Amino acid sequence: MTRLPTVSDVATAAGVSRQTVSNVLNAPDVVRPETRERVLAAVSELGYRPHASARRLRTQQSSTIGIRLDPMTDGISGVVLDRFLHALTAQADALGLRVMLFTAAGPEEEIAQFRRLSDGADVDAFVLTSTFEGDPRTEWLIEHGQRFVTFGRPWGVDDMEDPQHLWVDVDGRAGLRAATRHLLDEGLRRIAYVGWPSPSGTGDDRHAGWRETMREAGLDDDELDALEARTPEGVPHGAEALRAVEAATGGAVEGVVCSSDSLALGALLAARGRYPVIGYDNTPVAASIGMSSVDQPLEQVATGVLELLTGAHGGRVRHDGEPVGDPRHRLLEPRLVPRELQVAPA
Amino acid sequence: MTRLPTVSDVATAAGVSRQTVSNVLNAPDVVRPETRERVLAAVSELGYRPHASARRLRTQQSSTIGIRLDPMTDGISGVVLDRFLHALTAQADALGLRVMLFTAAGPEEEIAQFRRLSDGADVDAFVLTSTFEGDPRTEWLIEHGQRFVTFGRPWGVDDMEDPQHLWVDVDGRAGLRAATRHLLDEGLRRIAYVGWPSPSGTGDDRHAGWRETMREAGLDDDELDALEARTPEGVPHGAEALRAVEAATGGAVEGVVCSSDSLALGALLAARGRYPVIGYDNTPVAASIGMSSVDQPLEQVATGVLELLTGAHGGRVRHDGEPVGDPRHRLLEPRLVPRELQVAPA
Repeated sequence: MTRLPTVSDVATAAGVSRQTVSNVLNAPDVVRPETRERVLAAVSELGYRPHASARRLRTQQSSTIGIRLDPMTDGISGVVLDRFLHALTAQADALGLRVMLFTAAGPEEEIAQFRRLSDGADVDAFVLTSTFEGDPRTEWLIEHGQRFVTFGRPWGVDDMEDPQHLWVDVDGRAGLRAATRHLLDEGLRRIAYVGWPSPSGTGDDRHAGWRETMREAGLDDDELDALEARTPEGVPHGAEALRAVEAATGGAVEGVVCSSDSLALGALLAARGRYPVIGYDNTPVAASIGMSSVDQPLEQVATGVLELLTGAHGGRVRHDGEPVGDPRHRLLEPRLVPRELQVAPA
Repeated sequence: MTRLPTVSDVATAAGVSRQTVSNVLNAPDVVRPETRERVLAAVSELGYRPHASARRLRTQQSSTIGIRLDPMTDGISGVVLDRFLHALTAQADALGLRVMLFTAAGPEEEIAQFRRLSDGADVDAFVLTSTFEGDPRTEWLIEHGQRFVTFGRPWGVDDMEDPQHLWVDVDGRAGLRAATRHLLDEGLRRIAYVGWPSPSGTGDDRHAGWRETMREAGLDDDELDALEARTPEGVPHGAEALRAVEAATGGAVEGVVCSSDSLALGALLAARGRYPVIGYDNTPVAASIGMSSVDQPLEQVATGVLELLTGAHGGRVRHDGEPVGDPRHRLLEPRLVPRELQVAPA
């Protein structure tokens, strides 16, 4: 496995700073012509390819993708990332790519792992999950010319169209819209929301899907404020949050949508079968007790991540020759899985 | 990463067959002295270490462990292997070892992956899961001098003490004994068993734990035959199997123990709250609905696997100087997690 040239290699070869290399690649006008030419000569000589050029991983031998695996939890919704890892590994294997795991207790440790794994040339590209606003990991990877794709949007407004940050995500807002709409269509009106505290990219996005659908159905902000509860992840929190909403609304709740199956299971236990509860992530727990839930298309997420990583998206055009979608970002639609409840609280 | 010498390398260097090398290492008496010396010279020159010598992986740089990750399922009990992978990755990372994933549709494909990954020197050792009787994978690894540890016993009687096959397993028989004993101690007598069809190493072992505990409690073989059902994995199968036992016993069932949480959830739905059901694997599903279940100590399994792989078990002695346990095999005790049911069938 040969190490791929990095921004640092180009900088050393051209006798300039990494920032200057970055400027040549991203904002060439700010660099003096002779410096620019020296840098471009080094780029050419070393065969360096910036991330956005979508160099095809699969043309290399033994290409390896690094991905963080968190310590095990007994959580319910945590299995989503495991399911994504299964899909990614199977699809990567079929492309001749390998998946290497590492752990990290936080963003700074994860960056230390990026450094170690890329310096050792053990890993050619990274897949990141659980992105958040101001994520220092993607900043580091861009600055160091490392190829990566995130499962999750950057969540910072300015970065959404960053051509150096390739991402695949699932449209959680659309998922909560579908769940809320499903209950409204059953003639229910006072639909509560139990979700994670703000700020949370994913949580706020799902919350917005519920809130805007409810507003379209004619509920006003005061009613909506009483119907929502924001609480940390976990079954007991879900139960507690729903009880708080019931207290705040005088027991007028007619249905609940949630930002996770963990919270939904807690809400379901608190609801005691009096009204429907819809979860998010379509976990085995939801399937096994017959709880409706929003399903993320994890096979498609894995396909998208690998296509962006290998540059396989490059040539996709419509029959009229127009490119299909944005080749740097992919926002996938989730799907509501409606079910009949198989159990009731004891 | 340099490739480690294999049995084949030794055979080539000594001008003998791989079988002869194996004989020299395992049954030196059957080999002529001059051949034996030539082989041992090649072993020494190449630095070859047979697997059982428990060469310490961690003395090498960038040691990488390969492990198969199956395509994702929506199963319930399948998360056990994911939880093991999380534990293994975290503990391996702390030792400076890396975990590389691959997929395989069956044992033959897995062997092809072993060949590819060991030839390319990408992987220094393998961890195998889901062992079964006559497993061709372990045979191949032994024959090719590859280091490996299995999570799961060989299940073949003759192999149980094979010094070349290092393994860690959880004592499923003891787990089912504890579950059955728990219900007997509550004054229940007619405890049914719902588990996987025979032959199945794991399934037959768990079945034996139930059956022998029930026999000790005074039930005879005819009663036990009527109280047991063997069925493939899955929630609907668990429900169906329990209904069959109820039909066969005239509805006399007073409790159920199962070989998995999937089967137990089906049994629980069929039992409709009339008597307790105990599962196996302590999955998030069991925890979330308050179903009792047998917990496998997966962190300890990972610790054992890595200790056997790195030879770190070598020096462990009791205070009186006797070695602790068998340094080549480790059979761990599971633990019953009793719970109060939080839901009842609708």
